[in-house]
Amino acid sequence: MTSTLIKGGLVVTDAEETQADLLVQDGRIAALAARNSAAAAAFTADRTLDATGKYVIPGGVDAHTHMDFPFGGTFSSDDFETGTRAAAWGGTTTIVDFAVQTKGQALREGLDRWHAKADGRCAVDYGFHMILSDVGDGTLREMDTLVEEGVTSFKMFMAYPGVFYSDDGQILRAMQRTADNGGLTMMHAENGIAIDVLVEQALAAGRTDPRHHGEVRKALLEAEATHRAIQLARVAGAPLYVVHVSAAEAVEQLALARGKDLPVFGETCPQYLYLSTDNLAEPDFGGAKYVCSTPLRPREHQAALWRGLRTNDLQVVSTDHCPFCFTGQKELGRGDFSKIPNGMPGVEHRMDLLHQAVVDGHLTRRRWIDLACATPARMFGLHPRKGTLAPGADADVVVYDPHAEQTLSAATHHMNVDYSVYEGKRLTGRVETVLSRGETVLERGTYTGRAGHGRYVPRGTCQFLG
Amino acid sequence: MTSTLIKGGLVVTDAEETQADLLVQDGRIAALAARNSAAAAAFTADRTLDATGKYVIPGGVDAHTHMDFPFGGTFSSDDFETGTRAAAWGGTTTIVDFAVQTKGQALREGLDRWHAKADGRCAVDYGFHMILSDVGDGTLREMDTLVEEGVTSFKMFMAYPGVFYSDDGQILRAMQRTADNGGLTMMHAENGIAIDVLVEQALAAGRTDPRHHGEVRKALLEAEATHRAIQLARVAGAPLYVVHVSAAEAVEQLALARGKDLPVFGETCPQYLYLSTDNLAEPDFGGAKYVCSTPLRPREHQAALWRGLRTNDLQVVSTDHCPFCFTGQKELGRGDFSKIPNGMPGVEHRMDLLHQAVVDGHLTRRRWIDLACATPARMFGLHPRKGTLAPGADADVVVYDPHAEQTLSAATHHMNVDYSVYEGKRLTGRVETVLSRGETVLERGTYTGRAGHGRYVPRGTCQFLG
Amino acid sequence: MTSTLIKGGLVVTDAEETQADLLVQDGRIAALAARNSAAAAAFTADRTLDATGKYVIPGGVDAHTHMDFPFGGTFSSDDFETGTRAAAWGGTTTIVDFAVQTKGQALREGLDRWHAKADGRCAVDYGFHMILSDVGDGTLREMDTLVEEGVTSFKMFMAYPGVFYSDDGQILRAMQRTADNGGLTMMHAENGIAIDVLVEQALAAGRTDPRHHGEVRKALLEAEATHRAIQLARVAGAPLYVVHVSAAEAVEQLALARGKDLPVFGETCPQYLYLSTDNLAEPDFGGAKYVCSTPLRPREHQAALWRGLRTNDLQVVSTDHCPFCFTGQKELGRGDFSKIPNGMPGVEHRMDLLHQAVVDGHLTRRRWIDLACATPARMFGLHPRKGTLAPGADADVVVYDPHAEQTLSAATHHMNVDYSVYEGKRLTGRVETVLSRGETVLERGTYTGRAGHGRYVPRGTCQFLG
Amino acid sequence: MTSTLIKGGLVVTDAEETQADLLVQDGRIAALAARNSAAAAAFTADRTLDATGKYVIPGGVDAHTHMDFPFGGTFSSDDFETGTRAAAWGGTTTIVDFAVQTKGQALREGLDRWHAKADGRCAVDYGFHMILSDVGDGTLREMDTLVEEGVTSFKMFMAYPGVFYSDDGQILRAMQRTADNGGLTMMHAENGIAIDVLVEQALAAGRTDPRHHGEVRKALLEAEATHRAIQLARVAGAPLYVVHVSAAEAVEQLALARGKDLPVFGETCPQYLYLSTDNLAEPDFGGAKYVCSTPLRPREHQAALWRGLRTNDLQVVSTDHCPFCFTGQKELGRGDFSKIPNGMPGVEHRMDLLHQAVVDGHLTRRRWIDLACATPARMFGLHPRKGTLAPGADADVVVYDPHAEQTLSAATHHMNVDYSVYEGKRLTGRVETVLSRGETVLERGTYTGRAGHGRYVPRGTCQFLG
Repeated sequence: MTSTLIKGGLVVTDAEETQADLLVQDGRIAALAARNSAAAAAFTADRTLDATGKYVIPGGVDAHTHMDFPFGGTFSSDDFETGTRAAAWGGTTTIVDFAVQTKGQALREGLDRWHAKADGRCAVDYGFHMILSDVGDGTLREMDTLVEEGVTSFKMFMAYPGVFYSDDGQILRAMQRTADNGGLTMMHAENGIAIDVLVEQALAAGRTDPRHHGEVRKALLEAEATHRAIQLARVAGAPLYVVHVSAAEAVEQLALARGKDLPVFGETCPQYLYLSTDNLAEPDFGGAKYVCSTPLRPREHQAALWRGLRTNDLQVVSTDHCPFCFTGQKELGRGDFSKIPNGMPGVEHRMDLLHQAVVDGHLTRRRWIDLACATPARMFGLHPRKGTLAPGADADVVVYDPHAEQTLSAATHHMNVDYSVYEGKRLTGRVETVLSRGETVLERGTYTGRAGHGRYVPRGTCQFLG
Repeated sequence: MTSTLIKGGLVVTDAEETQADLLVQDGRIAALAARNSAAAAAFTADRTLDATGKYVIPGGVDAHTHMDFPFGGTFSSDDFETGTRAAAWGGTTTIVDFAVQTKGQALREGLDRWHAKADGRCAVDYGFHMILSDVGDGTLREMDTLVEEGVTSFKMFMAYPGVFYSDDGQILRAMQRTADNGGLTMMHAENGIAIDVLVEQALAAGRTDPRHHGEVRKALLEAEATHRAIQLARVAGAPLYVVHVSAAEAVEQLALARGKDLPVFGETCPQYLYLSTDNLAEPDFGGAKYVCSTPLRPREHQAALWRGLRTNDLQVVSTDHCPFCFTGQKELGRGDFSKIPNGMPGVEHRMDLLHQAVVDGHLTRRRWIDLACATPARMFGLHPRKGTLAPGADADVVVYDPHAEQTLSAATHHMNVDYSVYEGKRLTGRVETVLSRGETVLERGTYTGRAGHGRYVPRGTCQFLG
Repeated sequence: MTSTLIKGGLVVTDAEETQADLLVQDGRIAALAARNSAAAAAFTADRTLDATGKYVIPGGVDAHTHMDFPFGGTFSSDDFETGTRAAAWGGTTTIVDFAVQTKGQALREGLDRWHAKADGRCAVDYGFHMILSDVGDGTLREMDTLVEEGVTSFKMFMAYPGVFYSDDGQILRAMQRTADNGGLTMMHAENGIAIDVLVEQALAAGRTDPRHHGEVRKALLEAEATHRAIQLARVAGAPLYVVHVSAAEAVEQLALARGKDLPVFGETCPQYLYLSTDNLAEPDFGGAKYVCSTPLRPREHQAALWRGLRTNDLQVVSTDHCPFCFTGQKELGRGDFSKIPNGMPGVEHRMDLLHQAVVDGHLTRRRWIDLACATPARMFGLHPRKGTLAPGADADVVVYDPHAEQTLSAATHHMNVDYSVYEGKRLTGRVETVLSRGETVLERGTYTGRAGHGRYVPRGTCQFLG
Repeated sequence: MTSTLIKGGLVVTDAEETQADLLVQDGRIAALAARNSAAAAAFTADRTLDATGKYVIPGGVDAHTHMDFPFGGTFSSDDFETGTRAAAWGGTTTIVDFAVQTKGQALREGLDRWHAKADGRCAVDYGFHMILSDVGDGTLREMDTLVEEGVTSFKMFMAYPGVFYSDDGQILRAMQRTADNGGLTMMHAENGIAIDVLVEQALAAGRTDPRHHGEVRKALLEAEATHRAIQLARVAGAPLYVVHVSAAEAVEQLALARGKDLPVFGETCPQYLYLSTDNLAEPDFGGAKYVCSTPLRPREHQAALWRGLRTNDLQVVSTDHCPFCFTGQKELGRGDFSKIPNGMPGVEHRMDLLHQAVVDGHLTRRRWIDLACATPARMFGLHPRKGTLAPGADADVVVYDPHAEQTLSAATHHMNVDYSVYEGKRLTGRVETVLSRGETVLERGTYTGRAGHGRYVPRGTCQFLG
């Protein structure tokens, strides 16, 4: 394997901004040396990348994607090949996707199926969380095994009764298990039982447009479920990670828990930071593009999310990438918003959208890397192999041009979906070159990767616990 | 009907302490006149009660009793005759009891059954709340009718899955209905689904003693359900009354809601103010006497309840009177605390125990009457007919001796139950004479009432709303 | 003295709404009897007022007025004669005014001076608070005497350095004294030291218009002082009453204190509920009419004040009546807002403006009487003599027509000031007839009172304490 | 200058734990390489330190020391020579000490005086904060100059009236200045005006023992001043750093501010984490050893401080090192606790006491380094030169033995003071070797440093702002 020297850039991690040269050997970060030091001068490598005027940052870690995911009678439109390629284009070098337990089946069966979907197809490295659809004694026992194998996080749903829904007793039992085995519960926190009543009432009243999706999935019902999940976790003595937080009231619940020093964590996604119910109200069924759950919220919620990211009441920004084409997929819900597949594309743009937040003054550069790389890696047991640029880490490195300008569009993006939720949005900053374990997968705007380069990464347990 | 003049006492209501003479005519408070005024001198009556040195207070309103109540395969040991007689002994002249909907049956059927239980047997006046066991379209429609008839409050349970339990969707729908029809939701707020998991685990681990009843029904799970009920009520735009609040953490949730000016109310009971998990741990299965739900809490919670009563985050003190004899009833749960019938006696002692709180400095005299008489009457649409001594009100009047001393005991109480939870407790203050609609039912310690005097009282809607 | 029977009205107190007839004898409420009862039929009186379709309410208690008050080199334009006459017109039958200690002089000297100002001139009854301008050993000793005499409340200022300002040490010492003698500290809570810096900076920058008065007296500096006063009171173990609360952030501090069950009380005034910084910005120096301290706030604060009144985080509505004519008085501050005398008229309109709040749905009728009559009376040791209609109380009674319409205007008001802050405001509801200790001072819109009818009322201590 | 290779250790920074070798060249961190990598093998150096089984950590940054400090008529017993030597022994390689403005004099005069005290005497590097004793126009102007020169933080006192005390107007003006010039206000937050009243009362009542020092300086008065400082900073639009936080109630105020995303920071000290009012109550005037302000608090406060350190409501642990010998100095206060010089020794033990917190489970290793090195460096504009081990940073490096055991004692410590507040305390973990800018100042327990090695370090502005 070749060695690579990345010279002249500003190395930015969650902790430091350093004028340093970075030496890659054998797919790993071998060394960093101070710019112009004797030590730097002694570095030799097969090839050298000039990063002058650029940032050298860790490859992104997207802890929430759904490739080839079954929902509402269809599958998300990116499979592991197209989805991880798009990730690579966007500077994300690790994804953690969700394997799904089929009701009545073993976790193993679902996990095997997801391995089969991903194996040999990925452009960048990947791991798996496990979705629990059917918590019973067998499931609980299997959780221990999965933690040992490197599937250390388990997602449950307080939403979607009849599909993924777990009741509070199942949730409590699964949380108790993680209190013993070191696993981490990921929670979709919405009161699905109450929401389904409102859905039914809305449809009965002829309120069938996509915007009603946002109206029935009330912020208070996200906050309620968030509070409930936190209390169940306290009873179980277990940690909790709340996915795709979108409501100000839910952030408030997380803040209260953090103030008590509870091991409770929160994730949000770029769509909640940049989009709103205004989009859900786009005409001609256009709002369907923006249907996801938790739903987009009125604009006012965005300030609470940005503040939560700054105050560390929210710790991770993932994408919840789960694209469905407008034509043929989103259209399933014409005349009945509840039949619109829930989800939207995003894996390609997370690093850029968060860099834009730096440009806009919402975040510092270090916090950008923290939210997008380091903390997701720590949260899901991948650090320091992923998420940072420490000596010994995997050489997942991005040379980032902070001054380049780009315009997002379905015409130019690399995700397998026929629209962009950010169509026409102009951004400052762009991924220039991407290394995955030392191999170049993107070089100055040319894709050089390949399906199968990406490897499965077993994960350790959450690194924020005791 | 005779007229009665009550002279020389200190008339205490929730609002005033007045040296006044009180004239009863035709079963109602006809007039009050300032002591020694010409107006007072002009009062004439068939008989005169000398209340010198005594308090003249409104008869108590106990808004939470369960006479002849089916639970765990048995019935509470007081029926409407013995229970209302005990109430009269204790200065309570109105009870609001709970009619129960049988699953699969109409509300009407349950209400009729409860009317049959009570009719012609009561010593004092009574009304009914309705327990919803099976919320469906028919139930919702019937609620409107019941509100119009004077059954204006509906209790649901977040506890007791498989028995009284309603899920969040049923709760939301019932709350929505009350938002329209003016009814008030009463909630047993405990997460029964999660508790049942803990019960099963405790029993499986051999933790079968009564004290484990208190351990599995965690304070956090009361607080959780309280928060959830509040959010569901907000979504429904409906008011909420949380029954038998016992945990400090639940009071905190009520305080947060009150701080937002939400129509959320809380009730506690004397047992939570005076008893604790220490009692549940009494040896030889003695703890079974104290098994009720929500459970008794560790002593530290009492301070939060007293504070809540003072700050008006809790507004009502009821008894949740639901006695089961130790012999033959509580004993059903030997070896399995989950089989102990839930409930304890209390209807006779509420007025005295709250007067003791005045003596102890926890409450003012006015707040005593407020919590025990005026606010329950307003809350459940009985004011000013009940709960106060205003001209025109029903002449439900108690002459209370604040200096008398008494010792509580099963040997001397009048409830039909073979133990007292306050055995040996000494109190200062005692009911001396009780009038119910102008008729004397207790006269200086002699019971003069009769079954059938008590009438059913249809109620208006909650008087704290809009 | 004649006796009066008031028949046919709805008697509204803080606690009850009763269809009752009210009998006045010897200047006191002799009796109340249920409408159409035999007892009512037996009532005889020299004259009868027909209150059919009207409310019969207690006379108002305005606990915060400044008649003949020296400020900024001038005196408030109402003296005790004109001011109490205007009070009577508006249904207020008791005022508590502020005697002022002159720096370097005894409290007695100031109190005597204020007695001289009021004696023989008042239309309605009056009491005094004492303003402490110079807390020292002598002052502290005199406080005990004043409490015994019936001057039981002491106002200090955290604002106005060099004038009324007391430092935190003086405040602490005075509070400690009240912890012993039963007195109540009233606090003007604004950080005057910081405000004076901002005043100086504003003037230096040429920001001299009245609206800058509102900008420099920041809401945060009211909240700060409120928090500070609360903590000093806790250290002293003393109660606290915060006057003229206007900022949402200050209400929040009071709410936090109330949540801890601390004896902390808050007053607001109609001007903060109905006026805003929009008024301060009126052109041509018109904003000067609205200059008072604490200042009017941006409109958004009003919702927090209304909420505080409903949640009982604010307990009293007074007027802080302190009028200065626009011509010749307010004009002193042309070109320098800091020279505008602080204060505005209001004593005449409080009862009506709060009734309007009932009409508008902000308050219930009972809460109207509570805020305007009963609680100020209890707070300052006047209850039940004042503030209610209990047998034995002073017969300060208002017959209030809830349907009459009126338009406020300087052209028609009775206060001695050349403008109205509510010019042109239309109200529903109007005072019809006013009795003060049984004597008619206003009869169906004709003033029948006289200077000298009003008597000095020594007060007891605060009735909300232990 | 020699180069040094530190091999075999676990490199711990606030962000990473890396098995890496560290190469020092020319007094700086030249490079880090992954253990056993080709890059590491290529490192050459004049000498090699074997850190196998040890931690390699950044030298400590103590942002709060008082060497040669005048207080109460005497001077702290460590001067810059003895104090910085003790710091070096304890693994602290940078201190930021406080220059003092003399009342009526220029800041420059005070700063020059402190430069003279330190110049040529220090064992490790040092910077200065400036204490403002006399805020006026001249002071404000000088602040701008000092920020530019590298004295970027200004301490004011809400305590000590007549000595260091600034009133709220002075504080506001100085804060406004920092809002413009980038400086950071450091606040001693205690209400000194109120405390002086309590001191006087205590002494007058004969409560003269050292423990009364703790009783009069009430936690509520620390919380009050903390709240006040925060509001003044908000009004000024300026950041705030609260020094030596000791009360749970003060932490609560900081947490509220942080929850609002305000630039408010808090420091605590080891003495508040490990000592309590129990120490102040030691007999025979022994409590005097523990007299400092803010004072030690009852034990219960410690949990709130530890929690604050974990939740990041407290960000820095400094020592407030300000030693006075018991004999001859502390003794000045026999018979009058208010005359005891305020302060205690600590600069030598901070790194060890915080490592003990890692051993005890209070903190993670990374948080240890964060609190003791990285965050103080960032807070006071020294990062990444100080506080981390990034390429290019000053080679201030500690080899730390996590398994060594030691017992603290005045007999063995290196501070110039005749007692230890931790006498006999056993700790796990010890500093083994210390480099300051690449030079060895402590080598395996032998001091090899020298007075004059330490250089003055001008500082940038706070790195947590915008």
